Amino acid sequence: MKFTLKNNSSKYSARTGVLETHHGSINTPVFMPVGTIGAVKTMDPYELKKIDFKIILGNTYHLYLRPGTDIVNKAGGLHKFISWDRPILTDSGGFQVFSLSRLNKISNNGVEFQSHLDGSRHMFTPESSMEIQRKLGSDIIMAFDDCPPGDSDHSTIKKSVERTTNWMVRCSDWLEKNPEYYDHEQVIFPIVQGATDSQLRKISAEQLIEHSSCGMAIGGLAVGEEKNAMMDTIEYCDTLLPKNQPRYLMGVGKPTDLIKSVQRGIDMFDCVMPTRNGRNGHIFTWNGVLNIKNEKYKDDYSALDDCSSHEWGTAFSKSYVRHLFNINEILGLRIASTMNLTFYNDLMVEIRRNINEKSFGDWSDSMLIKMNQMKGM
Amino acid sequence: MKFTLKNNSSKYSARTGVLETHHGSINTPVFMPVGTIGAVKTMDPYELKKIDFKIILGNTYHLYLRPGTDIVNKAGGLHKFISWDRPILTDSGGFQVFSLSRLNKISNNGVEFQSHLDGSRHMFTPESSMEIQRKLGSDIIMAFDDCPPGDSDHSTIKKSVERTTNWMVRCSDWLEKNPEYYDHEQVIFPIVQGATDSQLRKISAEQLIEHSSCGMAIGGLAVGEEKNAMMDTIEYCDTLLPKNQPRYLMGVGKPTDLIKSVQRGIDMFDCVMPTRNGRNGHIFTWNGVLNIKNEKYKDDYSALDDCSSHEWGTAFSKSYVRHLFNINEILGLRIASTMNLTFYNDLMVEIRRNINEKSFGDWSDSMLIKMNQMKGM
Repeated sequence: MKFTLKNNSSKYSARTGVLETHHGSINTPVFMPVGTIGAVKTMDPYELKKIDFKIILGNTYHLYLRPGTDIVNKAGGLHKFISWDRPILTDSGGFQVFSLSRLNKISNNGVEFQSHLDGSRHMFTPESSMEIQRKLGSDIIMAFDDCPPGDSDHSTIKKSVERTTNWMVRCSDWLEKNPEYYDHEQVIFPIVQGATDSQLRKISAEQLIEHSSCGMAIGGLAVGEEKNAMMDTIEYCDTLLPKNQPRYLMGVGKPTDLIKSVQRGIDMFDCVMPTRNGRNGHIFTWNGVLNIKNEKYKDDYSALDDCSSHEWGTAFSKSYVRHLFNINEILGLRIASTMNLTFYNDLMVEIRRNINEKSFGDWSDSMLIKMNQMKGM
Repeated sequence: MKFTLKNNSSKYSARTGVLETHHGSINTPVFMPVGTIGAVKTMDPYELKKIDFKIILGNTYHLYLRPGTDIVNKAGGLHKFISWDRPILTDSGGFQVFSLSRLNKISNNGVEFQSHLDGSRHMFTPESSMEIQRKLGSDIIMAFDDCPPGDSDHSTIKKSVERTTNWMVRCSDWLEKNPEYYDHEQVIFPIVQGATDSQLRKISAEQLIEHSSCGMAIGGLAVGEEKNAMMDTIEYCDTLLPKNQPRYLMGVGKPTDLIKSVQRGIDMFDCVMPTRNGRNGHIFTWNGVLNIKNEKYKDDYSALDDCSSHEWGTAFSKSYVRHLFNINEILGLRIASTMNLTFYNDLMVEIRRNINEKSFGDWSDSMLIKMNQMKGM
């Protein structure tokens, strides 16, 4: 995997680059839709390509439980199983184990947990997470890390940083010593922990850099901490992480978060917000967020979003989509998800264009002012 | 509206034709997907065009309740409201009033009913059904008829035939005397009643023919009567209905029903089966019906239907679609609905091709034998 920096902002740490993988090239900064259990909810892979997404994410925890790692492996890997021939990134499973499963028990060895589906008992270790992700066949494997809640005390965070480093060593060891299943390259991104503590972030970053050759992630943010502290931490991480590798901010976020994080040197994002909010009837448009279920759209025949790059932005009226939500018709969920994913991708296209054209500083400042006046951005 | 007969079978009453409307031409025999409340469930209009459907159906009862006739009228009609610029046929609302609503009370004036949604009281008459359908702007308006259950006694059916004729006169009168809302032609199809009683069918057909210039429908079938009686009735209606107008068999049916009915001179069909069965995981393929939820497909990586004209037939495996149903992912419902609608359209394409190539007699005989060996066809 090769990452080439293209342009950078003079005012901010924003930069554009190209990440080359066996399954195709990715222009950064990039937003990755979340294909939780082998599908980006409501969407088909052709639609994702039409919007022009270059990479999607899969959740190891979910795929491990259903359909099961071996089903995917026997299909020839996740790409073949879900009919997606572009790059895939999988998370390590750790985050969902903490947030979704019952009665999880963490030790230095790994995490014991009960499935949120049937209560069955399982164990994830750095080694098993690597084995699962290698069997899934993702282009980018995420390290198995210890991600404590945002309100954890200092000693818990300190412990998580130590454990994350130890687990990273075990991840690297396992990948080195064990055979590959497919004929495409699979690389690993370490995940820097340390919550909003700059000293711990520094330690974590320094310890993990030696295990990183293709890219690094910032974990442990967007987990309940204060928003300014999140941005300060990203800004500080910008000084710690290697410039010549892509930086992936996990689980973020709102459109304004993306712009602010790109200003602070982030190259990769993932978030369920466009699809989850879409299914709730919240539609991101260039004129603000529509709560399309609202009665006031009943006879509003104007286009859903005439600034969207997607033909559906003008093909369907607010009145029609409000009607679809009102009758619980699946097409409503599809249109809202499609519009939101398109909005996120259009935003990344604009971000990259402005960085490349050396206008990102002013553009991002005024876009943030504009978006801050819109509720929910 | 103009109907031109093209070819006919020498062995059966099957024929091909072209029905020309303001919104485009329709090759017959044709299957019309049911766009119940302004959407063919799970499907977007671009997907319907990709499959190559030329006409869809809308349900007057549902659209009258939600979003309401005036919302559609103010949008510029149903075509604009739902972004479908090809022909639309609407039913009269009568059938759903009987099958869905509560406490309906029929009189010579019309039908009083309570909404199945909120219990609110409404009244449909021949006049109000015409007004609603004209406001919806459908290319083909269906007459407001009295359709009794399949197990009704002779006097009920006799009464329904009389009432249907009286109501047809009132429909024609209303359409003649009242202004149009749009600049496209809207024509009306009378609906022949009489259940499986040939004498009553004859009376009904003879009385309605004078009100028919563009097409006629056969109602009162597929409402619980015996299957052979249904086919005998269609065969008898073939001798009663004008040859130079399309014949529309309402609410039918299974793939074998379509073939048998085309053999008996039917030109138009509608049915919720492809979409409803699809959402239940029943997928029609050229190798039989798959119950895709079945455990046996867990690791069946073969193509969903490699004989389908749709790319999804080979893009997705049985294992993947089974997984999507297992996790309740909307994409599963979409794939199944798409495959079934494609199957139905592919079947009509084959039917038309064989009629045009003078091979329909033998082809339909052997296809029925083949399909009869497949469960659920």
